[in-house]
Amino acid sequence: MTKRQIHLGLFILGTGSHVAGWRYPGAFDSFQDLASIQEIGRIAERGKFDLIFMGDNLYADPAAHPSYTLRLEPLTMLSALAVTTSRIGLGATASTTYGDPFSTARAFASLDHISNGRAAWNAVTTSNATSGANFGREHPDHSLRYEIAEEFVDVVKGLWDCWADDAIVADRASGLYIDPAKVRALDHDGKWFKVKGPLNIGRAPQGRPIVLQAGGSAPGQRLAARTADVVFSVVQDFAEAKAQYDGFKALLPAFGRSPSEVTMLPGVMPVVGRTDREAFDKLKLLQSFVSGTNALQILSDRFGTDMSAYDLDGPVPDLGENDAYHAFAKVMLAKARRENMTLRDLYNLTAAARGHWVLCGSAETVADTLQHWFENGAADGFNVMPPYFPAGLDDFVDLVVPILQERGLFRADYEGTTLRDHLGLERPERM
Amino acid sequence: MTKRQIHLGLFILGTGSHVAGWRYPGAFDSFQDLASIQEIGRIAERGKFDLIFMGDNLYADPAAHPSYTLRLEPLTMLSALAVTTSRIGLGATASTTYGDPFSTARAFASLDHISNGRAAWNAVTTSNATSGANFGREHPDHSLRYEIAEEFVDVVKGLWDCWADDAIVADRASGLYIDPAKVRALDHDGKWFKVKGPLNIGRAPQGRPIVLQAGGSAPGQRLAARTADVVFSVVQDFAEAKAQYDGFKALLPAFGRSPSEVTMLPGVMPVVGRTDREAFDKLKLLQSFVSGTNALQILSDRFGTDMSAYDLDGPVPDLGENDAYHAFAKVMLAKARRENMTLRDLYNLTAAARGHWVLCGSAETVADTLQHWFENGAADGFNVMPPYFPAGLDDFVDLVVPILQERGLFRADYEGTTLRDHLGLERPERM
Repeated sequence: MTKRQIHLGLFILGTGSHVAGWRYPGAFDSFQDLASIQEIGRIAERGKFDLIFMGDNLYADPAAHPSYTLRLEPLTMLSALAVTTSRIGLGATASTTYGDPFSTARAFASLDHISNGRAAWNAVTTSNATSGANFGREHPDHSLRYEIAEEFVDVVKGLWDCWADDAIVADRASGLYIDPAKVRALDHDGKWFKVKGPLNIGRAPQGRPIVLQAGGSAPGQRLAARTADVVFSVVQDFAEAKAQYDGFKALLPAFGRSPSEVTMLPGVMPVVGRTDREAFDKLKLLQSFVSGTNALQILSDRFGTDMSAYDLDGPVPDLGENDAYHAFAKVMLAKARRENMTLRDLYNLTAAARGHWVLCGSAETVADTLQHWFENGAADGFNVMPPYFPAGLDDFVDLVVPILQERGLFRADYEGTTLRDHLGLERPERM
Repeated sequence: MTKRQIHLGLFILGTGSHVAGWRYPGAFDSFQDLASIQEIGRIAERGKFDLIFMGDNLYADPAAHPSYTLRLEPLTMLSALAVTTSRIGLGATASTTYGDPFSTARAFASLDHISNGRAAWNAVTTSNATSGANFGREHPDHSLRYEIAEEFVDVVKGLWDCWADDAIVADRASGLYIDPAKVRALDHDGKWFKVKGPLNIGRAPQGRPIVLQAGGSAPGQRLAARTADVVFSVVQDFAEAKAQYDGFKALLPAFGRSPSEVTMLPGVMPVVGRTDREAFDKLKLLQSFVSGTNALQILSDRFGTDMSAYDLDGPVPDLGENDAYHAFAKVMLAKARRENMTLRDLYNLTAAARGHWVLCGSAETVADTLQHWFENGAADGFNVMPPYFPAGLDDFVDLVVPILQERGLFRADYEGTTLRDHLGLERPERM
C-alpha cells in the first residue's frame, strides 16, 4: 500500500489572496488577462497540484477589494486553461442559488469532456445578499439556501448519470448513433426543481465531475458530508483544524461514506522565504500595502455588520451571529478572543488572507508545519492561497514542494490523468 | 474605398449540417471530442472565415438526429477554441428564454477578454417547447418569447457598458485599483427583469461583443433590426433571398441604423466537387445515408406537427401556421408549392440540410452562385454549413475560397484582430 499522500489545491481569487497582493513588486495586477492565468496554471502543474480552484462572486462593488469585484467568468476561463494544461484538475465555483441544475450539470460535463476528466464543481450557495439584485430575486436566507442546495446537487448528479458510458454507438454501417435504451430521462419533480432530462451531453470522462464544497456551517457540513468529494475549510490553528477534521469525518458514516472518500483541505496562505526572516519581511511589506478602507470593508463583509462604527483600538465587539455571518467570522473571532486582539489586530489579520490561516516562514518551517498537520489528523492536504502571483506561488512550488516530495509526502509526478486519479477516487458506476 | 467584401460564417451543429453527414467516409463522428473542434477551427481560420458559430439546443432526444441531441456546451467549447485560434470570431448560442441576463452578459464579456475581442452572442429565444421541462417552466409562446428577448438583449448590452474603458487603474503606488467614478450600476427595473449591476468584469475588448440573430418571423426580424450586428437567414433560392435581404434592410432606418451596419448571411450547405458531377455524386452518397425516421422527425420538428401521419408519396399537406412553426417551414413550404413536391421530396430536402439551401456543384459553380447573390443584393456573405467535417469544410476552403479571393471578393488575410474588425464595425462608445 502506498503511503498516504498530501493533496494540494491552488485557490485563485482575483489578484491573489492577500488584500493588497497586487501591489507587491512584480505581482500580476490583472485577472482579466488570460496570459496571467495560463502562467499560474503552468506553475501549478509544475508543482503537481491536484487542482486549481477559482473562487467567485456574483456581484461587483467597485469600492471594494478588486479580488471581490473583477474576474473572468470561471467556466469560460477554466475551459481556456484546459487547453494549456494537461494534468491538473480544474475547479470552478457555481452557485446553487442563482444557477439552474440543467445548465450547471451541462457546463461541468462539458468542461470534463474538454479537459479529458479534470473538471470539478465547487458548489456554493452564494452568501452575499447583494447578488440577488443582479438576478431580480430576494436573497434566500441561510437555511433556505442549503435546503435548495441539497436538491440542486442531487439533480446535477442525476443528470450526469442519464447517459450510460456506452450509449453513443456511432455505427456508420447501420446508421445507429445513439442507443436509446442506454439513455434515460431524470424526471425529477421535487420541491424546488422540476427537471426532465436527459442531459444533452454524454457521460463525462470522470463519470461524474468532482464536487467541491466549503460550507462551514452545520447545514454546509451536512451537505458536504453527503455530496462532496473535496472539502475546503477555514481554520486559524492546529487545534481548530483537528477539531474540524474530526468533526467532519465523523459525519460521513451516517451517509454511508468512509472518511477516506472525502479529501479535506484547510485553506492556507503561505508566505515563504529562504529564511524565516525573509518570509516575515515579505509579509511586512505586504501588510504595508493594506488600505484601511479595504480591510474594514472585508471585515464588515465577513461579519455581516458595518465595522467602521467601532473603535479600531478598542476590543473586538460582541456581535452575535447573523445570517450573513461567515465561517470565517467564527474562526477569526475565536482567535481574537484567545489572543485578546483589538479590532485593529483583527483587521490586520483579515487583510492578510481574508480570514484564512497565514503560514509565514522559511520553506523548512512551512513544510514542517504542513507535515505536522497532515500526519496528526488535521488535514488531508491544503488549499494553497498564494498572497500574490506569480512569485507567491513560485516560492511555494520551488521551495516547499520539493521538501514535501523528498519526505515522500507528495507525488513526484502525476500518476493518473484525471482529477479522480489524483484524488485516489474510483470512477463511479452510473447510479 | 475598399471593394465590398463577402463575409463568411461557419455554422457548427453536432456532426455537420447534413442529417447523416457523420456516416460519410472519413467524417468526424463525435462532437464531444475537442480535438475535432480544434481541427475545424484551424481549417476555418486557414479559410479566413469571419467567425465560427455554434448552434445549440436545450434538450436531448436520444431518438432524434445526433446533431440535435449531443454536443459540448457552446461557451466552454469556444473558450477552449479561443486558445487554439488567433483571429477567427467565436459565436455561441445562448437563450433569452432559459438564461438570465447577468450570467449571459458576464460569460460573453469573459469570452471576449479570453479571445482578445472575438466573442459573439447568438441570441435565440429557443423554439423547441421540450426545453421548458428541463428548467421547470412552461415554454412561453412565440410572441411572449420575443417580448422577453427584447428586454433581455437591452439588459445585456447595458451590463456590457457598466465599466468605462479606463475604469481599471491598478496604480500600485497609490493603491487605487478601480476608479469608482468610472463604474456605474445599471439599475434596470423592467417588466421581465430587474438587474442592478454593475457587471463583475471590465469592459470587453470589443466594447460590446457582437450580437448575432437568426429570427425569421416578424418579431424576430424586428429584434434583429434593432439589436443585431449579424443576421443569419434561411432561404431556398435567389429571389427569396433578395426579398428577405431587401425586407430586412428596409427595417433598419426606423431604428436609426444604416443598412451597412448589419451583415446579412443566408445559410448555405455547400457540396463541392472538382466537377459538378463529383459534387452531385457526393450529395447522392450523403442522401443514401438518410434514415427515414430521422428525416421525418426533423420535418415534424420544423413544422411543429407529427408528419408521420401523412402519405409520403402524396402532396405536402396544408398545415396552417402554428406556434412551433419555424422560419424553415415557411421557405420549405414555398419551395414545395413552387415545385409541386411530394412529402417524400420535401423530406429529402429537409434531410440534406435541415431546411437550408443546398448548393451543389464544382468550385466554379459554387463561387459563381455566391458571387451572383452577393453582387445582386441577396447577401452580404454566407453562413456556411458543411454537410460533414472535416472534408466538407476542407472542400470549401481549398476549392471555393481561393476563387473568391482571386476575384477580389474575399480577404486574402485577416486585416484586424477582432471580430468587429473583420465585420468592418467600429468599436462602440459606451452608451
